Amino acid sequence: MHDTTTLQQRIVQGLNEIDIPDSPENLYAPIQYMLQIGGKRIRPLLTLMAADLFSIDEIDKALPAALAVELFHNFSLMHDDIMDNAPLRRGQQTVHEKWNPNVAILSGDNLLVMAYAQLAKCPADKLAGLLGAFNTMATEVCEGQQLDMDFERRESVGIDDYLQMIRLKTSVLLGTALKMGAILGHADENDAQLLYDFGVNVGIAFQLQDDILDVYGDPAQFGKQRGGDILANKKTLLLLKTLEIADRDTITVLNHWFHDDSNPEKKVHEMTSIYDKLGIRKLAEATKQAYAEHSFRALERIRVHASRKAPLQTLAHALLTRTH
Amino acid sequence: MHDTTTLQQRIVQGLNEIDIPDSPENLYAPIQYMLQIGGKRIRPLLTLMAADLFSIDEIDKALPAALAVELFHNFSLMHDDIMDNAPLRRGQQTVHEKWNPNVAILSGDNLLVMAYAQLAKCPADKLAGLLGAFNTMATEVCEGQQLDMDFERRESVGIDDYLQMIRLKTSVLLGTALKMGAILGHADENDAQLLYDFGVNVGIAFQLQDDILDVYGDPAQFGKQRGGDILANKKTLLLLKTLEIADRDTITVLNHWFHDDSNPEKKVHEMTSIYDKLGIRKLAEATKQAYAEHSFRALERIRVHASRKAPLQTLAHALLTRTH
Repeated sequence: MHDTTTLQQRIVQGLNEIDIPDSPENLYAPIQYMLQIGGKRIRPLLTLMAADLFSIDEIDKALPAALAVELFHNFSLMHDDIMDNAPLRRGQQTVHEKWNPNVAILSGDNLLVMAYAQLAKCPADKLAGLLGAFNTMATEVCEGQQLDMDFERRESVGIDDYLQMIRLKTSVLLGTALKMGAILGHADENDAQLLYDFGVNVGIAFQLQDDILDVYGDPAQFGKQRGGDILANKKTLLLLKTLEIADRDTITVLNHWFHDDSNPEKKVHEMTSIYDKLGIRKLAEATKQAYAEHSFRALERIRVHASRKAPLQTLAHALLTRTH
Repeated sequence: MHDTTTLQQRIVQGLNEIDIPDSPENLYAPIQYMLQIGGKRIRPLLTLMAADLFSIDEIDKALPAALAVELFHNFSLMHDDIMDNAPLRRGQQTVHEKWNPNVAILSGDNLLVMAYAQLAKCPADKLAGLLGAFNTMATEVCEGQQLDMDFERRESVGIDDYLQMIRLKTSVLLGTALKMGAILGHADENDAQLLYDFGVNVGIAFQLQDDILDVYGDPAQFGKQRGGDILANKKTLLLLKTLEIADRDTITVLNHWFHDDSNPEKKVHEMTSIYDKLGIRKLAEATKQAYAEHSFRALERIRVHASRKAPLQTLAHALLTRTH
């Protein structure tokens, strides 16, 4: 097997070797920019780790699929940032801000096509399976983004609807990144599906943890202002759980704070007090934990020696116990 | 061989059979709407006709590729309409007008993924070749759209640059639609490339004819106001040719009309007079004719019996001699 650092280096090298023309500049400079902003490259790493889990010699054959996953991720960020009107991405100006929305639309489109161009480099006998998994994921990510936008405008959102939304918007990409690696590592269908389940459930647990850290994380470490979701009235697991179990008087107080932005600090403090009173943190942690356990059980059931699963276990553990 | 009407019916039927979910409604209703607005479905027809040119029994196998081409075309229209701020498409409200730009971005993204989902249904042994041709085309269409937007803002555009732009923006899709059919009909690489050249050059000739018809078409038949390009100061072949050969005095008059929108009728009349004086129509017709002849020569060189080429010749002839 390959150690994780080696795999990460191959990804960085592979991304640098993607041929991005200079012209038309307004099409390709934003793509260069977006890819250089960086990120932790977790998704393509999952593809290589999955291939490595099943087969020791398929790493180079899995690289194009890993790059396809990373290009897709950047495409979806570029378009989501337009829709969400986000000024910053990883501390840098978003593409639609630095250039304009039209540039971000078209460069994003081309990033998606570039993802498929990487897929086309995969071994011919695996192509149909990879393309099928990738297309299903891509459509689901679009559905998830649409649900997220719909939920912003909707009065009431059920917790199951919320969990389904984050599954589609963020988690199926993790699951599919792993499944594609499994396909390239010659895993059978059952094992590939288990690895997919592992990824999807890690993804959901990770997202729920994000909801928790927004309120209970260490702001110095988290790198964001505490309570950002609260100030944006974002329908997180914590808020939805609160709305589900709060009594009428508490709902009245919540409704007040939804419409009062005059004192942000007080709003965060008061909302957090309500969460504390209702024990929301514990409830949210329990939900997160259930997904985490589900994911580890799926990994355990995969029919390769337990020692080979250690790197994926370590990575998932690191992702799910971060405090920032 | 199959007659053209039969092939057209298969396309309509195939489009109707694409499974489009009901929900999320804001993602899928715009896709339904866009596909129902219609159009002549020329591009998927080219794919089926190309398959039929080489092989009598590959039509059903070619249908998913034909649908991929039509879905891609609709994706690019949906996104181009946002970028061009177009209120109408085929006489109906554009998606970003009827819904909003975010809906048009995301539904367009999903249309592109749906195109790839059709491609994934193609015979496995042809998939790599089809995907390669499709991806090259898709990136070139993005490049063409970017150049078109760049040219709007640029002072001076060369005729060669303009021809390259329309080749990328509109013609490579016709060429690729045909090439994909050729691949599915088991054509060899040389014949597939000749059919691609036929399509690209028909596409360029068609676009140049559009430029000519804007000024010299019969408005009753053309369905648009005569001189729409002139009123928009659009850099068409006619205008670029005029700027290339006009003397200094004429350039002064042209510059006046670029900035004077007070009397649209007079602007169209005066600009047309300049075109007439310089014989621009004849020059543009000659350029168009050169591409048309290039296309028919490529078709002739394909190594199948001339009688099998008749439907494609008839279609190209109809496209290139329309007066509206």
